[in-house]
Amino acid sequence: MAWNIHKIVDDLQQVRHEWRVQQNSLKEEGGRELPSRAEIKKIMDDLCGILFPMRLGPHDLRQHSENFYIAHTLEKTLYALLEQVKLNLSYDYKYRKQIENPVDIQHLAEEIVGDFAEQLPKIRKILDTDVIAAYEGDPAARSVDEVLLCYPGILAIIYHRIAHEFYRKDLSLLARIIAELSHSKTGIDIHPGAQIGQGFFIDHGTGVVIGETCIIGQNVRIYQAVTLGAKRFEIDNEGRLQKEYARHPIVEDNVVIYAGATILGRITIGKGAVIGGNVWITQSVEANSFVLQSHASKSQN
Amino acid sequence: MAWNIHKIVDDLQQVRHEWRVQQNSLKEEGGRELPSRAEIKKIMDDLCGILFPMRLGPHDLRQHSENFYIAHTLEKTLYALLEQVKLNLSYDYKYRKQIENPVDIQHLAEEIVGDFAEQLPKIRKILDTDVIAAYEGDPAARSVDEVLLCYPGILAIIYHRIAHEFYRKDLSLLARIIAELSHSKTGIDIHPGAQIGQGFFIDHGTGVVIGETCIIGQNVRIYQAVTLGAKRFEIDNEGRLQKEYARHPIVEDNVVIYAGATILGRITIGKGAVIGGNVWITQSVEANSFVLQSHASKSQN
Amino acid sequence: MAWNIHKIVDDLQQVRHEWRVQQNSLKEEGGRELPSRAEIKKIMDDLCGILFPMRLGPHDLRQHSENFYIAHTLEKTLYALLEQVKLNLSYDYKYRKQIENPVDIQHLAEEIVGDFAEQLPKIRKILDTDVIAAYEGDPAARSVDEVLLCYPGILAIIYHRIAHEFYRKDLSLLARIIAELSHSKTGIDIHPGAQIGQGFFIDHGTGVVIGETCIIGQNVRIYQAVTLGAKRFEIDNEGRLQKEYARHPIVEDNVVIYAGATILGRITIGKGAVIGGNVWITQSVEANSFVLQSHASKSQN
Amino acid sequence: MAWNIHKIVDDLQQVRHEWRVQQNSLKEEGGRELPSRAEIKKIMDDLCGILFPMRLGPHDLRQHSENFYIAHTLEKTLYALLEQVKLNLSYDYKYRKQIENPVDIQHLAEEIVGDFAEQLPKIRKILDTDVIAAYEGDPAARSVDEVLLCYPGILAIIYHRIAHEFYRKDLSLLARIIAELSHSKTGIDIHPGAQIGQGFFIDHGTGVVIGETCIIGQNVRIYQAVTLGAKRFEIDNEGRLQKEYARHPIVEDNVVIYAGATILGRITIGKGAVIGGNVWITQSVEANSFVLQSHASKSQN
Amino acid sequence: MAWNIHKIVDDLQQVRHEWRVQQNSLKEEGGRELPSRAEIKKIMDDLCGILFPMRLGPHDLRQHSENFYIAHTLEKTLYALLEQVKLNLSYDYKYRKQIENPVDIQHLAEEIVGDFAEQLPKIRKILDTDVIAAYEGDPAARSVDEVLLCYPGILAIIYHRIAHEFYRKDLSLLARIIAELSHSKTGIDIHPGAQIGQGFFIDHGTGVVIGETCIIGQNVRIYQAVTLGAKRFEIDNEGRLQKEYARHPIVEDNVVIYAGATILGRITIGKGAVIGGNVWITQSVEANSFVLQSHASKSQN
Amino acid sequence: MAWNIHKIVDDLQQVRHEWRVQQNSLKEEGGRELPSRAEIKKIMDDLCGILFPMRLGPHDLRQHSENFYIAHTLEKTLYALLEQVKLNLSYDYKYRKQIENPVDIQHLAEEIVGDFAEQLPKIRKILDTDVIAAYEGDPAARSVDEVLLCYPGILAIIYHRIAHEFYRKDLSLLARIIAELSHSKTGIDIHPGAQIGQGFFIDHGTGVVIGETCIIGQNVRIYQAVTLGAKRFEIDNEGRLQKEYARHPIVEDNVVIYAGATILGRITIGKGAVIGGNVWITQSVEANSFVLQSHASKSQN
Repeated sequence: MAWNIHKIVDDLQQVRHEWRVQQNSLKEEGGRELPSRAEIKKIMDDLCGILFPMRLGPHDLRQHSENFYIAHTLEKTLYALLEQVKLNLSYDYKYRKQIENPVDIQHLAEEIVGDFAEQLPKIRKILDTDVIAAYEGDPAARSVDEVLLCYPGILAIIYHRIAHEFYRKDLSLLARIIAELSHSKTGIDIHPGAQIGQGFFIDHGTGVVIGETCIIGQNVRIYQAVTLGAKRFEIDNEGRLQKEYARHPIVEDNVVIYAGATILGRITIGKGAVIGGNVWITQSVEANSFVLQSHASKSQN
Repeated sequence: MAWNIHKIVDDLQQVRHEWRVQQNSLKEEGGRELPSRAEIKKIMDDLCGILFPMRLGPHDLRQHSENFYIAHTLEKTLYALLEQVKLNLSYDYKYRKQIENPVDIQHLAEEIVGDFAEQLPKIRKILDTDVIAAYEGDPAARSVDEVLLCYPGILAIIYHRIAHEFYRKDLSLLARIIAELSHSKTGIDIHPGAQIGQGFFIDHGTGVVIGETCIIGQNVRIYQAVTLGAKRFEIDNEGRLQKEYARHPIVEDNVVIYAGATILGRITIGKGAVIGGNVWITQSVEANSFVLQSHASKSQN
Repeated sequence: MAWNIHKIVDDLQQVRHEWRVQQNSLKEEGGRELPSRAEIKKIMDDLCGILFPMRLGPHDLRQHSENFYIAHTLEKTLYALLEQVKLNLSYDYKYRKQIENPVDIQHLAEEIVGDFAEQLPKIRKILDTDVIAAYEGDPAARSVDEVLLCYPGILAIIYHRIAHEFYRKDLSLLARIIAELSHSKTGIDIHPGAQIGQGFFIDHGTGVVIGETCIIGQNVRIYQAVTLGAKRFEIDNEGRLQKEYARHPIVEDNVVIYAGATILGRITIGKGAVIGGNVWITQSVEANSFVLQSHASKSQN
Repeated sequence: MAWNIHKIVDDLQQVRHEWRVQQNSLKEEGGRELPSRAEIKKIMDDLCGILFPMRLGPHDLRQHSENFYIAHTLEKTLYALLEQVKLNLSYDYKYRKQIENPVDIQHLAEEIVGDFAEQLPKIRKILDTDVIAAYEGDPAARSVDEVLLCYPGILAIIYHRIAHEFYRKDLSLLARIIAELSHSKTGIDIHPGAQIGQGFFIDHGTGVVIGETCIIGQNVRIYQAVTLGAKRFEIDNEGRLQKEYARHPIVEDNVVIYAGATILGRITIGKGAVIGGNVWITQSVEANSFVLQSHASKSQN
Repeated sequence: MAWNIHKIVDDLQQVRHEWRVQQNSLKEEGGRELPSRAEIKKIMDDLCGILFPMRLGPHDLRQHSENFYIAHTLEKTLYALLEQVKLNLSYDYKYRKQIENPVDIQHLAEEIVGDFAEQLPKIRKILDTDVIAAYEGDPAARSVDEVLLCYPGILAIIYHRIAHEFYRKDLSLLARIIAELSHSKTGIDIHPGAQIGQGFFIDHGTGVVIGETCIIGQNVRIYQAVTLGAKRFEIDNEGRLQKEYARHPIVEDNVVIYAGATILGRITIGKGAVIGGNVWITQSVEANSFVLQSHASKSQN
Repeated sequence: MAWNIHKIVDDLQQVRHEWRVQQNSLKEEGGRELPSRAEIKKIMDDLCGILFPMRLGPHDLRQHSENFYIAHTLEKTLYALLEQVKLNLSYDYKYRKQIENPVDIQHLAEEIVGDFAEQLPKIRKILDTDVIAAYEGDPAARSVDEVLLCYPGILAIIYHRIAHEFYRKDLSLLARIIAELSHSKTGIDIHPGAQIGQGFFIDHGTGVVIGETCIIGQNVRIYQAVTLGAKRFEIDNEGRLQKEYARHPIVEDNVVIYAGATILGRITIGKGAVIGGNVWITQSVEANSFVLQSHASKSQN
């Protein structure tokens, strides 16, 4: 053998020990109480099918039996979700001390999942406006079905609208895992905290970043590589980053932001404004204004 | 139970009903007649193996039995493709009214798949020029095999050259699903309508967008985050977007476009031109010119 | 049948023959001696579990039995890795003529894998600094666990630190496949050759490109769509690209580079410098300087 | 290579050609129109779950949502069954000439599957009597649930009662495949033609054979290795076996047949008779009689 | 549609309702608390690997790392087993009223699994005597490895010795499921209650039945289709079968029983006796005796 | 934790050590050199498809492309088989000392697999006679296709004719694993050493045992639970079983043996003899004789 397993295992244990000392997490934790990415992936696939049964559900579904499929899959999925919510709550209880009593977890989880389930029809309704927005906003779109089946921007907004529900209930791990599943598939990185109005459309989408405290109005259209980010980070007296304060843009209704534009800080892009490609904006923009990159390119030949 | 499945199912049905009323698609549709993303993924994997058997085929293939593998896999794959083509045609018949008679579908599909199959040797030949272009265009490339195995730009162009064949036959759903499979893996978004000459190379590639009506010449090289897009969208008398007119750039032979450049509208980048990184271009560029970003950065310290 | 399999198979064989003539690789090669992307994917999954057992290992792992899991998985994984290393060495022997004698391959592979295994504790230790950097560098991060589970930048640096070990041992195919697995999942493209110091953090990450000869110091932070690239390519007397010379930036300790910045050529970004978003830099930047985009945007309304 | 694939392929083709000449089936058949064992296996698993949801259904099913599960699974399974029924009918049309017109197949298949679906509650009801019979008939049975989960005799009778429905509709291939799935799992070989009354129990079961034209009354109990077979085969004028005439025993109500008994020919075992182990019977047995093996064993020591 | 799902679902519900009324199990049960056949199958596969790592463990295991494999797999498997034991105990609590307090279940399950784990070395040791017995008892056996890899009798005794441990702890469902997994694979039906001494060998095995209260000594050899069963069943005053009393044979050391012999009732087959094929025995047999079938066959020609 | 993994692992190691001391196999063996049951299962599935492409091949195969399928699958399967043959030979070299030089193994394995491949057309031809025999011998058989798809006796003879080829080449492990795969599926246990003529049919089959040195002529028909076994075992001077001498029956052409008959020892059942059910035979039987069980059953009522 060209390696000494025992020594490597011991050395790895030593490094983990140092990390745990450093993180004050020396106490043994038994099993792993963390939501599972693989489970959440399955849950999201099923939720997509529940929301759009004849387009994203099983390929052999027939319209007259949609409800059978939905009832069964929803029931199964909500129980699976319940497990993930409980794992998230247990984690919060152990590490983030936000829950006072572990016996509340089952009850709390049921309440959260029940509330979430009731939102599903509303979520579908608002997603329909997003599909319409995509179809109407892209000259290359041949049909609403092409939009649902093929557009990464639609997948990103389906995932976001679900993730945001969990973010609102302070299940940040669960929400974030959903967001990253979408980010990995689409290249679109929407923080689950972002508030987004109806009729939202991201075209192409690769490289889009939308920050945690963004507020986006209705009928906003965004292109690839647009950043709605923070301008600078507040630091507290001890030199640590402050977290969870409003630091990202407010984008009002009917705004269009072209590819590569970077909009930073808690500024407001007014109603109906159009932001040109590659523009860099750190101050508020008036309603209905049209912002272009000022420089010309130099040509040599 | 913390939720009422019956009520949620009913509410979801109500929302779907509203959508179908709005879309004039109330008529029950029976089974789902849509090409399947999962099936097309398998078909594309097999086509990659058929085109490059010793590099992208099964790991235990031997060179002396390439033809056995290809004959069997091709036969199987063309029948699988036939099913997807028929689903695409049925969809078009039902929703887009482009096909007059459903009985023609089998015959039409066979013709399309037969034509496609005949193109495969030609596709392989042009892909070989793309591999060479990548190897010669990237100082980091150690071998043509590294290019074939590892470069997302190669995967994107293999998928595109296949998707484009179906786009030409007006199977837009099928073509688009192929394109999005590639987009999701590589971050490179080439609309299947784009016409691309031989010896094409995209390096790194994340964020590249190439629009539907682009025409790209031979030996063009493109870097990450380049957009070849539309400048503005034409609107008809009723305020609806016009679709399917020429709105993206023409890029002539031997052009190089560096990372982050944005080129918009039906303009022409002339033969041999070099477009610098992050440049924003909305007007035609003469042959052999060299376009740079004009501004200097401001340094403070 | 609407197609003639025999003819297509023959035509494809003819095209492959032409390619092999052109590439001087006519000699039959028997089986395929290339590292397998699918195998390497499994190996990387297992290495992630070995490095962070309670976060990236199997969901039912318990802390008190970490070492059982690690010992078994490490042993199994190193043998699997040995196979891939041998395939890489065989390939190099056959095509790149860098190994003189095929009988050395088994011995050489064992040495490489043994050395790699010994590096694992050191790799974990440096990755811990990366996790801390992410947690401290992002106001949206709720915990170090959220960072490990959800941040694509962490996945990218885990993969890179492993890929770099193989790059250093001149196993470029293996290293490159690892890098592309990460690129495909995260949109972050780090060439395995890049040298990166501890405490490295990439936020959001989509579109980041880091070139082969980059040297990055400690505690560097980078945002989405940053390019650390080559400015131009050297060409030898016969007009061919020169390969493997230093052509990418040196980024010193504590530098921050905001989204979309493009930094090209063998220049140096001095200690503590801050590079603003979308900036284009081709000349060295002094320590502690702050570089901004100079132009203002034009607003019309 | 130590083998010549081309020659072996040609030789195999020649043998197949000879077979087809001999079988008068030279005409090319296109695709394979035969029910699929793998598909039928899935259908049977689902039917078991539909009939006994809380015992043989999915492990995570909850009683309050049984109906959601059943409605969805039944709908899906009946469509899957429809495909298999159509394949069986097509086969019969092509090879057995029993169906006059291929256009009737869809209609006929729907009728058959619809009839079958309506029988399911009745099938469940009679299976309940079989479960009770097993529980009451075996001193080792701890509960009715143990019987349902563990007893091969129960699995065999579930499969048989389903297979028999298809036999009655003359779908002999489909019925036979179901019977052989059960035979392979349990070692119990019940021809789908056998008519079996309620309250039937086979204990242990390995080696039991029940012939096509058997008629078995209510509350019959049978042990392992019992054969209810044909005594001799009728031969027609041309020396060929006659098929499909009554040639197996009639077993009346409340009969018990112990292990290894062999009962052959169209004889009647009268009500309440008890047949001892290893007995060989070729003539009818009166009601309430008790038949034993006559010989004593010889002991030497 | 040729069927009415709603009606069938309702009818099935009605039949289930009738069954539950009849079984006094109307109370809703929530989730299904039953050990899972699929989970137990995986556990048994892992236990086989733990007991015989280089023969029944993973194909790529190396002898020098046996202990890594065993430690990891054992830990994982015991936790998986714990779940199944808890399901069995919960079932017993709900339906068989044998456990007084559900809060004891976790504790009790840990105790049971802990005890079981400690027995594993002893189980391996006795299985080694079974392997030797098979090798020495069958002239067709070429090696002990052939015996371990191929002999269904060895698989049956491995499964039985494990199942028997759970039977002894009164986990009859779990024990029975293990026994039926073996029965289904091998055709050998050993009730988990049977007590079997070391050096036990069943050759061929199909059709062997060994009853719940059998006691089998050391170095016993049995051939296919042997039954060690009950002669008659005791009935209580209310006409119900009595359960769990001694009703199967005692087979003393060194007995050989040839194929097809049937031995019924609580009789004793004395040490060293040889029972000939197809013999029917219902009375005790003295030590060292040789029992043959008495009758001659009749030959006609 | 209710168990001590370290102690159990140590105890298991101690038991394995004792076994290895006892078996003189203390020398460490590195990897496991044994044919793999899972691999052989796949190989057998593919060989069934190669032999009967339109009946046992892939469900979507079309007749006009049989040869593509066969050529590709055969090539792949023969290489997979080569690996298993090499593992069998390595095992024989290490443990059974029958091969003198490990360097011969590759060459020898290729020769064996090459020879085997050439036999395939002949094997198909003889299997066709078996299919005909089954169709003509069972009044319940509706078609030759039903026989091929459903009859366990046909599966058993396919597996046997293949296993026998490897037995003839002294690859006893490989041959035995094939035989046990068939035994487990069908309950029919044919030792791979048995020599069986054409037109062989086993009906029902459960419990059939055919010994290693049996010689069976043409057109023999056998029913369930028939044993063709050894009468007694020869023991050498040291009291060990003698292996590999002729000890099983010779069954001449056109013999029929009914269910449950037991025929033991190196006797001859003459041409055309008919052996009745449950008969026990240990002496040769003349040609054309008819052997019945002599005893009558006793009836009481």
